[in-house]
Amino acid sequence: MYFFRKRRLVLQTLMKHHVTFSPGPSQLYFTVADHARQAFREGVPSLSHRSGNFQSIVRETKAGLRQLLGIPSDFHIFFTGSATEIFERTIENLVAERSHHLVNGAFSKRFYDTAVQLKKNATMSEVPYGKGFESDLSIPGETEVIAITQNETSTGVQLDPRFIAALKENNPDALVVVDAVSSLPYPKFNFERIDAVFFSVQKGFGLPAGLGIWIVNEKCIEKSESLLSRGYSVGSFHSLPSLKANGTKDQTPETPNVLGIYLLNQVTQDLLRRGIDVIRRETDYKAVILYECLRQHKAMGPFVEDPRFQSRTVIVANTGQHTASIAQHLRKHGLDPGEGYGSFKNSQLRFGNFPAHSKEQYEMLVDILNTFERP
Amino acid sequence: MYFFRKRRLVLQTLMKHHVTFSPGPSQLYFTVADHARQAFREGVPSLSHRSGNFQSIVRETKAGLRQLLGIPSDFHIFFTGSATEIFERTIENLVAERSHHLVNGAFSKRFYDTAVQLKKNATMSEVPYGKGFESDLSIPGETEVIAITQNETSTGVQLDPRFIAALKENNPDALVVVDAVSSLPYPKFNFERIDAVFFSVQKGFGLPAGLGIWIVNEKCIEKSESLLSRGYSVGSFHSLPSLKANGTKDQTPETPNVLGIYLLNQVTQDLLRRGIDVIRRETDYKAVILYECLRQHKAMGPFVEDPRFQSRTVIVANTGQHTASIAQHLRKHGLDPGEGYGSFKNSQLRFGNFPAHSKEQYEMLVDILNTFERP
Repeated sequence: MYFFRKRRLVLQTLMKHHVTFSPGPSQLYFTVADHARQAFREGVPSLSHRSGNFQSIVRETKAGLRQLLGIPSDFHIFFTGSATEIFERTIENLVAERSHHLVNGAFSKRFYDTAVQLKKNATMSEVPYGKGFESDLSIPGETEVIAITQNETSTGVQLDPRFIAALKENNPDALVVVDAVSSLPYPKFNFERIDAVFFSVQKGFGLPAGLGIWIVNEKCIEKSESLLSRGYSVGSFHSLPSLKANGTKDQTPETPNVLGIYLLNQVTQDLLRRGIDVIRRETDYKAVILYECLRQHKAMGPFVEDPRFQSRTVIVANTGQHTASIAQHLRKHGLDPGEGYGSFKNSQLRFGNFPAHSKEQYEMLVDILNTFERP
Repeated sequence: MYFFRKRRLVLQTLMKHHVTFSPGPSQLYFTVADHARQAFREGVPSLSHRSGNFQSIVRETKAGLRQLLGIPSDFHIFFTGSATEIFERTIENLVAERSHHLVNGAFSKRFYDTAVQLKKNATMSEVPYGKGFESDLSIPGETEVIAITQNETSTGVQLDPRFIAALKENNPDALVVVDAVSSLPYPKFNFERIDAVFFSVQKGFGLPAGLGIWIVNEKCIEKSESLLSRGYSVGSFHSLPSLKANGTKDQTPETPNVLGIYLLNQVTQDLLRRGIDVIRRETDYKAVILYECLRQHKAMGPFVEDPRFQSRTVIVANTGQHTASIAQHLRKHGLDPGEGYGSFKNSQLRFGNFPAHSKEQYEMLVDILNTFERP
């Protein structure tokens, strides 16, 4: 590991601030502060959300996301306040009676709980934390929405986009809704085999929180309109018909987080310049070296054991009784790990692996983990 | 008016940028850009919303708002994505069957429409645009919520907080919910005579949009819990019980607009230093000189004729056939008026009168309006 260490010395001298590996809110993409300064200089926060300038920002943002993520033109892109809000809007707009949830962690469970709170007959396929799902998964008949958490932020389990596509093929009548909150822009979805996908900007895009992005196809709009015509409430300002009516004008139903949308546009353009293939390759590289380190380490190991399910973007380490001292060791070197989620707070650490985390920072993380000695 | 003009010469030399009088998003409070720079320096956008640092920001923000607006300790302060969202959350959480709406413009109408969309038996007392309500207003029996738009952003009509208090006294069993989106921090409410009030930050607080503030008493929480126990859906993450459970820990159910909350805290502290009494006096002064100018002007006049209903914070001018040329005349001098709302786009101009607008800027506005000559 000498190779990594040499680079680290240079990097440490350059680093003024701590790097946060928390899976979200996470490390800001390195251009964000400059873009924010520019936004204030240009008067972006005072722009009317009914003005042509605002519409241009929305139009550019959507075009950039389409290009970066390969979103076809028959999908709509909508803005909400958070991905948590999209849990609710999904159930309200797409489910009359039955949603089915793949549950393997806290966030997939929360999606299920949301459906229950909204008085739907929600069902679930549940596996233990840290596990994934097999392709022979059976879905109850009459399921209207299959809710899939593609990347479980609480456990670091990811599902292969091909598994999701197969699920759609086996259940063509259900709408397949994908929570990719803590993985995009990394995963490459086959948009012919999903109906909706959503994410929040404070993870993979390295932006300040306060914006959820909801990408839906025309079948979702039709489903919402059909519920509406059958007398269901599909919400008000953030119903799909309302979002679509405003979205076709590159507007939003409410005064939105204009600054957040502006910053999303700028960072999307930055990521496009870097190239999505480069981003994906670097993500793979960083994940490989951290998992390799965890596998060989004497004081810790990967929580997710099956390599098929090891998330590339949220990597969870079983750190057991050494959790506090490993965290302290990292912080001493300017690297802030994310805490384990919920009941794992004292036995795990989580590491976001996002475009904002450079290869050099990941090499440094691995080197410093390797210098940790059990007390 | 020579007095105003002399100051204007100095001010024009100082002004690098246009001042926007749009009622929202409006002119930023003059400290906001600096606070945002500081936020990025301190790593605020990367703070975990479960961290002690975030909780401190929330605690300070709520304490500052309590002090500035005189909010008693038995009221809760919650954060949402927008005031538009609060229309929806109000109906979901506080209404089983019947809400009654005082409608005199586009936003009060939208509050009513939201209740209809959510399948409630909403009723309304409607008066023409530009008019207010008299104290003998009768409210249907069994009304659970009286929804009052204290300041109609579309028409510039404001209702006196004493009128609202009287309405509560006459209808003690209904929850009185006040939309003060485009007036706070100006109006001084008697919190013993209202049950909830809300605003958004991009108007009177001069902040970037993306945050609604919802202030509710314990009766609102009880009503939501009662609906829940009777089998109603009150939403999910942003239900009052969920907001309260997180709020008591100075947290939020979802990852919120952390940067927005930080900026709200900073500007609230700035406004406290300036003093709410000074802010109210200056607002009155600015309103008086603009209304006086409109009254005497040959090419325009106030839209709201009854002085009791003339908003102090959103002042609407009937500009008729001269609308475009008056707007152009103002813009030439660096002053951007707000457009008339909806069908009034070509016959009115609107002027936000917020703490971000200085007395000198208002004097300049008046002077320049006075120099407008009919073509």
